[in-house]
Amino acid sequence: MRDVSIIGIGQTKVGEHWETGLRALGAEAVQAALDDAGVQTVDALYVGSAYAASISNQSQLGALIADYAGMGNLEAFTVEAAEASGAAALRTGYLAVASGAVDVAMVLGVEKSTDMVAEPRTLARSISLDADYEAIQGATATAQAALLMRRYMHDYGLDVSAFEGFSLNAHANGAKNPNAMYRNLLKPGAFGKAPLVADPVNLFDSAPDGDGAAAVILVSGERAPDMAPLPVRIAGSAVATDALALHDRDDLLYLKAVALSAQKACQQAGISAQAANVYELHDAFTVLTALALEAMGFAERGQGWKLATDAQIGLAGATPISTFGGLKARGNPVGATGVYQAVEATLQLRGQAANNQVAGARTALIQNLGGMASTAITHVLRV
Amino acid sequence: MRDVSIIGIGQTKVGEHWETGLRALGAEAVQAALDDAGVQTVDALYVGSAYAASISNQSQLGALIADYAGMGNLEAFTVEAAEASGAAALRTGYLAVASGAVDVAMVLGVEKSTDMVAEPRTLARSISLDADYEAIQGATATAQAALLMRRYMHDYGLDVSAFEGFSLNAHANGAKNPNAMYRNLLKPGAFGKAPLVADPVNLFDSAPDGDGAAAVILVSGERAPDMAPLPVRIAGSAVATDALALHDRDDLLYLKAVALSAQKACQQAGISAQAANVYELHDAFTVLTALALEAMGFAERGQGWKLATDAQIGLAGATPISTFGGLKARGNPVGATGVYQAVEATLQLRGQAANNQVAGARTALIQNLGGMASTAITHVLRV
Repeated sequence: MRDVSIIGIGQTKVGEHWETGLRALGAEAVQAALDDAGVQTVDALYVGSAYAASISNQSQLGALIADYAGMGNLEAFTVEAAEASGAAALRTGYLAVASGAVDVAMVLGVEKSTDMVAEPRTLARSISLDADYEAIQGATATAQAALLMRRYMHDYGLDVSAFEGFSLNAHANGAKNPNAMYRNLLKPGAFGKAPLVADPVNLFDSAPDGDGAAAVILVSGERAPDMAPLPVRIAGSAVATDALALHDRDDLLYLKAVALSAQKACQQAGISAQAANVYELHDAFTVLTALALEAMGFAERGQGWKLATDAQIGLAGATPISTFGGLKARGNPVGATGVYQAVEATLQLRGQAANNQVAGARTALIQNLGGMASTAITHVLRV
Repeated sequence: MRDVSIIGIGQTKVGEHWETGLRALGAEAVQAALDDAGVQTVDALYVGSAYAASISNQSQLGALIADYAGMGNLEAFTVEAAEASGAAALRTGYLAVASGAVDVAMVLGVEKSTDMVAEPRTLARSISLDADYEAIQGATATAQAALLMRRYMHDYGLDVSAFEGFSLNAHANGAKNPNAMYRNLLKPGAFGKAPLVADPVNLFDSAPDGDGAAAVILVSGERAPDMAPLPVRIAGSAVATDALALHDRDDLLYLKAVALSAQKACQQAGISAQAANVYELHDAFTVLTALALEAMGFAERGQGWKLATDAQIGLAGATPISTFGGLKARGNPVGATGVYQAVEATLQLRGQAANNQVAGARTALIQNLGGMASTAITHVLRV
């Protein structure tokens, strides 16, 4: 199996891109990545998107964007794993280059969701729940996160303020990221008083839907040093799944897919999960971050919320999380999220993270979740 | 790069499975493939589906079906390239095993479209056209095929009867296939009098939407002989794309993606396209078959329709096509089609095709098209 490295990255700002369509948004990130890598085109394009079909009535993004971006006729298709679509596309690009079948692969994550207003958008997004047993009853991703959070608070005797630190950190980092959707700081104490979205999940707890596109270019480890001054190696790559419907899971508060994918990716990279310097986790809701940290062994069950301190997860902390604002403040470009994480980790490992830089970052662990962690995809990146 | 072989296959009948949901239909094919291979589970599941989101309001099929089929926690996600989703999933499984990252991969194609009645289903299927420039104007896949066919007839001075032979052959073969949706023979001469669907495409020209699921199990060429009496090697695998919107193409009647993907797959396999013994082409409309044959060099431009004779494309012909009935008579389980083609080719190469057997078949070329051939995916299979 060939080593695989990232030699180019591109991203658009996350936000409400009303003036830019789905294909154009994707092409912006494609061009940025081509420019960054200094190449004219690639051999294959793998597109991650979760809701293009249900929000934009558009599938077949591979051919569409390859052509629109002027890279015509190359290998291209779409990869989907709900909110983890971006990382699933990264996994596909990794497999393609690792196999030797593809020399230069681009992975693009793209999502355009804000053209649709809130209520139909919530329905369009509910396709990533179990359609026959959950969504049909009116369940939404936010309602599911509320169930997990309520159960967590009940089992461990906590109130919502326990989760505040995750959002404070995300906004502190997002404020420094020019591509972030929200660049405001959260005022300590405001979290517990924020309007409820789905009790107990509140406005400052849930990540905002944003339009966005991000791309990375992958080549073999052998070619990478000739093509980029500081290639970033994909040292570990793993996907694991769990039951989609919450009621089908063995244990609501144990993210089994997170545990498995992190173990596999770290084993491949030859490190422990704790050994990374930068972490991009799927903080669509704060409870997911607490549970992911527990599933990866950063804390005992019921103790993950205690890590939400600046000393622990801040840019200068022991385990920096959401270093560019995460889903909460950078914004949640759903199916593009996993590729944003790869772009952000690459910036960290290249030492190009500017005000968001984690000093001396050499190893990053990025983790993208889909369908309320029924899919977890973990990659370990290294320089 | 490791060699990759098919060691297990499974399929459901194609038809109107009103009593079976999407996940259950998928699980039927999964179980059939596991049984055929004599294995309990696999390491990864790649699912091809085109319209689960727009017809069944269900994405995240990887986790859903892995869990429902009792294979929990494994790597799983969905791959989409419109009607070529099945072959795109096969390509992904091929890359995964070829790379060495995955030992035993299952590729599942599944589509459940007949729960939705004709008019909304046509809209739900139009997501694979260009949403902003074609579908929004009311274009449908059948209307696009009608444009291609009308242009072909105009340029080459033909009437619809020129295409009849493709449908006669498909129904002759479908009549012998117990998994086919239509098992009736077409009466010679009936084609030209069939009710129009989109002038000049008529009822006997267009493939029927059907529900269905098919699966193949892939392992490395090294392990395959220990796991199956007659493994089928994937000797070539290639994806190519073209502009999605018809008006963006250089030449309406030249399927560039077909030409490119066939060239690449055959080059990898070390054969000419003409050297195969069995062909499964994407005969959703007869004009696509004529154009695909021309793009692959079986006939000059404007001459592909002349191949539609029993002596040429029948089971005992020089280039047998649609040997189990093709999309036209086996039925068109859209995003599962590419996997059905792989299952049918495997049956041919194993000599297990019963009444549909092509004598002495050693090499098969299978080709799955999506978005009116904006994606073409060709695989060459050999024993």
